[in-house]
This record gives sequence, structure tokens and C-alpha cells, in this order.
Amino acid sequence: MNRIDGGVLAPNGFRAGSVAAGIKKKKLDMTVLTSDVPAAVAGAFTTNVVKAAPVVWDQNIVSGKHAVRALVVNSGNANACTGTQGDEDVQKMAQLVADGLDVESREVLVCSTGVIGVPLPMEKVATGIASCLSLLDDSIDAAKDSAAAICTTDTFSKEIAVEVEIDGKAIRIGGMAKGSGMIHPNMATMLSFITTDAQVEASYLQNLLGSTVIDSYNMISVDGDTSTNDTVLVLANGTSAAPAVAPGSVSEEQFIEAFKFVHTELAKLIVLDGEGAGKFIEVTVCGARTKDDARLMAKSVISSNLVKTAFFGADANWGRMLCAMGYSGASFDPLAVSISYASKAGLIAVMKNGVPIAFDETLAKKILQEKIIQVSATVGDGTEEATAWGCDLSYEYVRINGDYRS
Amino acid sequence: MNRIDGGVLAPNGFRAGSVAAGIKKKKLDMTVLTSDVPAAVAGAFTTNVVKAAPVVWDQNIVSGKHAVRALVVNSGNANACTGTQGDEDVQKMAQLVADGLDVESREVLVCSTGVIGVPLPMEKVATGIASCLSLLDDSIDAAKDSAAAICTTDTFSKEIAVEVEIDGKAIRIGGMAKGSGMIHPNMATMLSFITTDAQVEASYLQNLLGSTVIDSYNMISVDGDTSTNDTVLVLANGTSAAPAVAPGSVSEEQFIEAFKFVHTELAKLIVLDGEGAGKFIEVTVCGARTKDDARLMAKSVISSNLVKTAFFGADANWGRMLCAMGYSGASFDPLAVSISYASKAGLIAVMKNGVPIAFDETLAKKILQEKIIQVSATVGDGTEEATAWGCDLSYEYVRINGDYRS
Repeated sequence: MNRIDGGVLAPNGFRAGSVAAGIKKKKLDMTVLTSDVPAAVAGAFTTNVVKAAPVVWDQNIVSGKHAVRALVVNSGNANACTGTQGDEDVQKMAQLVADGLDVESREVLVCSTGVIGVPLPMEKVATGIASCLSLLDDSIDAAKDSAAAICTTDTFSKEIAVEVEIDGKAIRIGGMAKGSGMIHPNMATMLSFITTDAQVEASYLQNLLGSTVIDSYNMISVDGDTSTNDTVLVLANGTSAAPAVAPGSVSEEQFIEAFKFVHTELAKLIVLDGEGAGKFIEVTVCGARTKDDARLMAKSVISSNLVKTAFFGADANWGRMLCAMGYSGASFDPLAVSISYASKAGLIAVMKNGVPIAFDETLAKKILQEKIIQVSATVGDGTEEATAWGCDLSYEYVRINGDYRS
Repeated sequence: MNRIDGGVLAPNGFRAGSVAAGIKKKKLDMTVLTSDVPAAVAGAFTTNVVKAAPVVWDQNIVSGKHAVRALVVNSGNANACTGTQGDEDVQKMAQLVADGLDVESREVLVCSTGVIGVPLPMEKVATGIASCLSLLDDSIDAAKDSAAAICTTDTFSKEIAVEVEIDGKAIRIGGMAKGSGMIHPNMATMLSFITTDAQVEASYLQNLLGSTVIDSYNMISVDGDTSTNDTVLVLANGTSAAPAVAPGSVSEEQFIEAFKFVHTELAKLIVLDGEGAGKFIEVTVCGARTKDDARLMAKSVISSNLVKTAFFGADANWGRMLCAMGYSGASFDPLAVSISYASKAGLIAVMKNGVPIAFDETLAKKILQEKIIQVSATVGDGTEEATAWGCDLSYEYVRINGDYRS
């Protein structure tokens, strides 16, 4: 597997056009991504009971299991809590794209992110869609613009692309994502879009996405809130000449590895750009009885406000970590827990067999003052492990989210 | 029901002695509470897998359903993550109190709160217990000292007592609690101790406590972390001349009301004294399909960092509230939600039937700048309701918890 340039346009047969349609102030805020040929689609969506209108639209498309041709995304307005008007606007967006491409509206996915409770400015949106369609292109720059257009308060665009070779033929997977920026007057939204030229069936792709989401997006936490708009979409257009990806095929293993890598890297980039985040924390729990127990413990640790503020203060606070593991819902023997911290400044063990061990506080402080920190917690109940990614809880987080509307 | 003075010593037949044993610096840090006669006991404990040694000791006593004579509490050291030494120290503490009172060690409850991972300074503890026993008294001041001795970083002691009259005879219920103060190097711990002179059986008391905890302590959140030491204990010594409290008895209704009131008030005091909390937020969810759904939604709202920072910023951010209700796990129709805010500065509706309504932002700001704020969310799925209590998330919270060990 090699990293390559080109983001979502690295795979064959995808194009994108992006514009500043005026939904945000003078920034790229709309993008249309198309596939030259019908593409299989898979999706994962927010579990929030309150779902934005485009989420419902996309869920219907994904559950219909038919091929798609395009994805249209706007930032600056989430089209959430907008009543029946919101549903009509989604349909209109899909229809406008479909008309421009001479396909059906049910072949067009729609995503929105931004302000909630405010109807979309549909005139701007319509003009924006027309402009996007006139700019469709498969260049590296077009991919960059597309990744920028889906951002809200993200401080950098999130792009990735990789290539694997099977029987001398390349399969490419590209991706872009936006992370958690607070959107007036609302919550963080996560969007992630993946393209691939692999030949793969929709149902296979959906299963793979389901298992991938568990260990990537579901293992990150910035502030613990689940948005009304969270969406992951995968488009596979089958234009690669490599053998099809299917159970037991020669392509399967490498494709799965690359697919999971792309999603996990995007998930980590979202955390790295978390609101007010000064540190990137990777927590690995080993020796758990089950994989689910390992996930529960790792996720609980990176979600704890007390753990997060301790990292902000560069405090080797093993007690808060153990406590968060304890209320995670996982079962484990507290008397078999070992905990250590590492960063490029060094490695330090702070707890062994459930009892703290004397450690060099100065070294610990040094390790925890780094920007990227690895934490390892080992329990003694089995062989399963899981990793979760999070960030510290800073003054800046409180400032951004407390002062937003002031 | 009347409020009276005297805290945990308001009911007949209880005494307490408290001292500064030197576990904390120059502050009251130990208290022994005794009942003149054997008292029925009920308890509720942390659900954390990691339990401090005294929690395990008390759980055994409560599950044994035998009467108790005393409770000893120290602050400044949680006796958690202390291995087998911790278990031995708990037993020693109980034995010392038992010897002083000429009772059995299994009749003595033990609680600790403070630093974790450090063995108790048992010489100081032993001297402290002897001093406490020499000071046993049933005065209002003795109750105040006892309430002070269990505190850690609490900014005020939390005491309450009430009296109900049945057939011309008084039943009294008293209580004291400590709230969430960050304890080096660890987490918030909640302790709550209730005394009553009611005649009531242990199993009845335990059932009542179980249902009471759900709508009091379990409906508050300061930072979402569940400590290794959280403990609620109730001692009922039956010295009141009023008719016994039992199913269908003349005392039952009034006793239950007073009992729930005492626990709920203590729970609210804990939130009011939450770390870095500048505002007290009461969230009531009405019209839910089930009581559990109402609880889930109310609890989810007050636990959300995004909601909490919005209150810190005096921001009428209905979107974050609706979002938190949406991921609470409760089922409800998002298109039937109404939300309003109130404080002594006024009342304002911000959402009706799932769609935001235009509101006076200046008035909203005024309402949310108050110290005590009520939020009401109505859903349209039934008739059940629940209330939860929380606080804002402030710079001060990050400062206290980020800088603690610096």
C-alpha cells in the first residue's frame, strides 16, 4: 500500500467541482462529486434520533442498494430542524444535480453541514450547483477544493489517498473528511467521503464499512456529542482493472487493509483538528477479555473530561484513567491493570497490577508536554485490544463553545 | 414536613465526634457517627468496577442486612488502589471504632475520600478515631463538624434535616454530603449519609433507597465521571415513638416524601458546589413515553459538554439541547419538541414542534446570565417527566482539573 496524491479524485473515473456559493462568507461552500459510471454506495449515519433532512435522504438511497452517480455537499447550513421545507430542499438539490448530469435524482447523494434551524438559501444553492457542474475536473487541485468546500470551522482540510497493486493492476482509495467545528447555533458534525475504483458489490461494501466504522470513527471523541448530520459515504465505481474485491478474492486482503487505513487516518485527522485541542491522545487497551471490552475501556478513557483536563495540564494522572476504565461497562480485574505513558520525550510506567508505582514526575511531565501522546493500559483478562483517539480539554474549547454566539 | 436544624444529629439517638487527625492539613478530616441503639442500614454504591477498599467493606455489611452501630469517615485519603493493605486498613478502622464502643467490627461502616493510590496513615487514623470517640455529642455543632470533616475541596458543608409528624409523634431525617472536588491525583467522589429515628426495616429501607437514588444522585452530573468511592448510606435507629414505617402504614407516605426530599436536596447541593460551576441548571423533560425516556433525555442534556459550555456563555442554544436529547437513547418524535428557558429574569420559548421560533436574544441572554436556570423540554409521546440537575462548564473547571498537580 502506497500513499498517493489526489484525495477523492485519486481513483479513476471521479470528478469534482467546487464553488463559493455565498452560503458561507467568501469561502468554498459547495462541491459536487461525480462518478463517470454508476457507483456502488455504502453509508453509515448518525444514530441521533434527530436527523437532518439530507441524512434521511441518503439513508433511503443506501438502503435501496442501487448505484449512484453523484454527491452534492454544502457547508454553512446543516438543513437540520427545518421541517418539511428541509425535505423539499434536499429533493430539489438532488434533482438539480441529476438534471445537470442527465441521471435520476435517486442517484444523487446529498449532505449538508453548518447552522441548524435555518432553511437553506436555495437560490444560492441552485446557482452553486450549476457552477460546480460546470467545473467538474479530476485534478489534484479539484480534489483539494472539494475537501476545502466541505469544511466549517476546521483549521485544515482532511484528504488522503492510497494505492494497492493486485496482479499488476492498481486499486485506489481516496477520502476527504470534515471534523468537529461548532456551528452556530449548534453542534459538531463529522462528514467523511470515500471514493474507490475497486470493483466491489454494494452489500459487501456496506458490511465492510460497518465493521470499519466501529474501529475508526466510533473510536474517536472530541466532545462526546453525536451530531444530527454525521455521515460517512463510500462510492465504488469499479473502473479499476484489478480483480474484483469479494469474499476470498486475491484483492480482498489488501483492499480491506487499505480501506480501514483510509478511514482510520481520516478519523485521526478529525481528532487532530478537534476544537481547542492542543494534544492528540492515543489510548490502547490490551489484554481484554473481548474486543468490545477493549473498545469500551479505551473509548471511556479518551471521553472522560477528567482525563482530558489532566492531559491539558500534562498531569500523569493514572487514577482518572483507571476510574474511566472502571465505569466503562467493561469487566476486568482492577488488580491486574498496568498503565504507561509515552511520547517522543520517552516512556514511563505509572501503575502495575492495580497499584501505582513510584515514577519520575519530571520525566512524566516532559512526556505529557508533547503534542502527541500514547497511553497504554494492559488488563489481565484476555488477549483482545483496541485503540481510541482523543484530545485534551482546554480553555480554548470552553472559549470556542462558550463564546460562540456572544 | 418542616425543615429543622441539626443535620445528621437531628434524629434522636445519634452522636458524632470529629477531629483534625492530620490526614489533611489542619482541617477536620475524621468523623465517627454512632447510634445509641442498633440501626437498620441501607446503602447505594459506585457502579465502578474499580472500588475502593471501604466500599467493598460496606457492601458486605449492607448485604448482610444486620444492624449497625457506627460509621467512621476520613477525608484526605480515599484508600483506593491500595491493594490488600487497603483491605486490612479498613478492617483495622472498623475494629478500632468497635473496640471503643464495645460492639463488633461488622457493626461499623467505613468510608474514605481523598487521594488514591496512597496507603492510609494508620497511626494518625488510629489516634483520630480515639479522639472522635472521646468527643461524641448530639449537638448542632457536632453535626456541623461532622459535615465539615467529610469534605475535600467542597467550598461549603452540605447538611439538611427535616421532621414529619405522625399521630402527634415526630420522625426526623437528617443528612450530610460531600460533593465533587478533585482529589489528588484523582476523581470526584460523592458521599451522602442519612440518619433517621424512624422505625423501619432494613429491606424496606433498601428498596426505598434504590428508587430514591434513581431520581436524586443519579440525575445529577458535574463532569460525568463515576468515582471509585461513591457511597450513600442510611441509618435508621427506630428511636422515634411514631408508628413504624412499613407498606401501608400511616407513616409511610410522609416518610417517603421526606426521605426523597432529603436525598434530592443533598444531590442538588452537590451540583451547586460542583467544581468550577458558576451556574445551577435544572432540566425538566415532560411528555415522555416512559419515565426512563424522560430521565435519559434530561440526564443527557445536563451531561453534554456543548450544552454546559453554552450555559457558561449564556447562549440560548436550543440546537445543542435537542441534539443531546437525540443521542440520549430515548425514543421521541423530534417534530413534537418544544423548549423554553426560565430564570428569575424571565421566561422564553425558543423551539416549538421541532422548529426554532424567533425569540428576543437580549431577553434570552438576560435569563441565561442568572445563577439558577430552569430549562423545560416537552416532547409529545406521553405523560412521563423527569428532572436532572447540572452545572455549566467553565474555564475554572479546566483550571482546577488541568492544573491540579502542577
